Amino acid sequence: MQLTILGCHSATPRTNAHPTAQYLKINERHILIDCGEGTQVLLRQQKVPFAKIKHIFISHLHGDHFFGLVGLISTFGLLDRRTELHIYGPKGIKEIITLQLKLSKSWTSFPLLFHELESKESEVIFEDKKLKISTIPLDHRVYTNGFLFEEKPSLRKLNMENVAMEPEIEICDYHNLKNGKDFVKQDGTILENKDLTLPPKDTHSYAFCSDTAYKPDIVPIIKNATLLYHESTFLEDKKSLTERTKHSTAKEAGKIAKQANVQKLILGHYSSRYSNLEDFRTEAKTEFTNVELAESGKVFII
Amino acid sequence: MQLTILGCHSATPRTNAHPTAQYLKINERHILIDCGEGTQVLLRQQKVPFAKIKHIFISHLHGDHFFGLVGLISTFGLLDRRTELHIYGPKGIKEIITLQLKLSKSWTSFPLLFHELESKESEVIFEDKKLKISTIPLDHRVYTNGFLFEEKPSLRKLNMENVAMEPEIEICDYHNLKNGKDFVKQDGTILENKDLTLPPKDTHSYAFCSDTAYKPDIVPIIKNATLLYHESTFLEDKKSLTERTKHSTAKEAGKIAKQANVQKLILGHYSSRYSNLEDFRTEAKTEFTNVELAESGKVFII
Repeated sequence: MQLTILGCHSATPRTNAHPTAQYLKINERHILIDCGEGTQVLLRQQKVPFAKIKHIFISHLHGDHFFGLVGLISTFGLLDRRTELHIYGPKGIKEIITLQLKLSKSWTSFPLLFHELESKESEVIFEDKKLKISTIPLDHRVYTNGFLFEEKPSLRKLNMENVAMEPEIEICDYHNLKNGKDFVKQDGTILENKDLTLPPKDTHSYAFCSDTAYKPDIVPIIKNATLLYHESTFLEDKKSLTERTKHSTAKEAGKIAKQANVQKLILGHYSSRYSNLEDFRTEAKTEFTNVELAESGKVFII
Repeated sequence: MQLTILGCHSATPRTNAHPTAQYLKINERHILIDCGEGTQVLLRQQKVPFAKIKHIFISHLHGDHFFGLVGLISTFGLLDRRTELHIYGPKGIKEIITLQLKLSKSWTSFPLLFHELESKESEVIFEDKKLKISTIPLDHRVYTNGFLFEEKPSLRKLNMENVAMEPEIEICDYHNLKNGKDFVKQDGTILENKDLTLPPKDTHSYAFCSDTAYKPDIVPIIKNATLLYHESTFLEDKKSLTERTKHSTAKEAGKIAKQANVQKLILGHYSSRYSNLEDFRTEAKTEFTNVELAESGKVFII
């Protein structure tokens, strides 16, 4: 699992502060999460193989999270993309994008499929044999979801040293063994699966939570995630602003990370009023130890 | 008159190639022409006092000319702008912008006024005592206008050396003199205006023409312009592409400049297939001498 931070600042794009966008490579799936203005240039700067992106998840319809989407879609068209592209985001996103494509008379060269979200409960919005993706309903000024990306366990591995000792096991039995089944010999003896196979590689998960006020009822959804990105627009000195703006402080992000027992917390969506980002880490650390700061171009490899 | 090139490349934004946007300061008016994705960051980079921009002109609804507009408008809102902002552009632009503002629940803090264009004939779309702005109907795949910005002549200047010699002329007569009127003395003698005043400073004009196929019938509209920006997406080696794409070659831009007898031609909107931009200048120079290349950050001062 590899997470590349493209942009991680709040509100207006500035020369060295890009709005939210992240590229996630997980179990061979290439995913874009949020797409603020300028994301396509950041994808090029970070040398992301962005033609491979097949799924884009938009948390909410504030400009700093989606104004770059229509440009990216247009660019895919100009590059003569043929692979289908799936967009997941709040209801309304389809109308916004298609109106712009229509007025510019630039229909896409590839199937563009929208999956509009409306539910206020967590729901599974994507699932295949490698990956499961669910929404994390958040508390913001407009309808907003975080997303939980979970690797699915791969098959067990054959323990060939032991398998080779049993002449009755044939190649056509391997599939069942990898799927965890015991082996029954001709004489009825049962060879237990755990003696014939090794466990699959560990699975990882990534929880993306931006933008939101402090919302402890997301904790059961993101419990034990490998990696949690949680917004921290403010420090506690501006806690009074979180009520009206529906954002969190770094301390609150730390609290969520602690309650959810995640392995690592990444902070981001910093307000432009703060110049020293280390203050966010320091504040979150009062609640949770393993804290990292999102920065444009930073890559987290699990 | 001062023209700052923000972006001047065609199609997709890339790390060092920004789509069309120009900032024009003319007779104390601050104007933005086109607004590709990333324009607000370029305005900051070039240290343009962008809060002063009161008029934005959008040539057409292709993404590389307007995808940055909604972001700029949102940023004005976040910066708590109060001054009114006028947007001139093709019919449909109001719907695109207001839909996005509506869905993000972010109404502007300032009056946002749309002037939608539909006419296929040149028309005056703005006029005050300092400036006149007309459309230049262009020939592109979608409805497109260029824009002609013309300074209006200022008042004549008093020739104080001569005025001071005439005791009958009082301060309250100055206004009439500046407006070109002769002075009539008590005894009926006429003092001619040309002996009492000096001509006003020269006026300048700027013609912006992007995107368009070669269209000689714009020549009468832009005749004798001080500065002409004319797109040159291709060189003559790709002339066959201009028919389908409705773009021009550098040679064709040079032809327009020559026929219109402008003082200076600026080329831009280069296709990404060309790496040496000097080739554009060389080609245009076969038709017209005074050719400049648009580049991000370049400033033309007249």
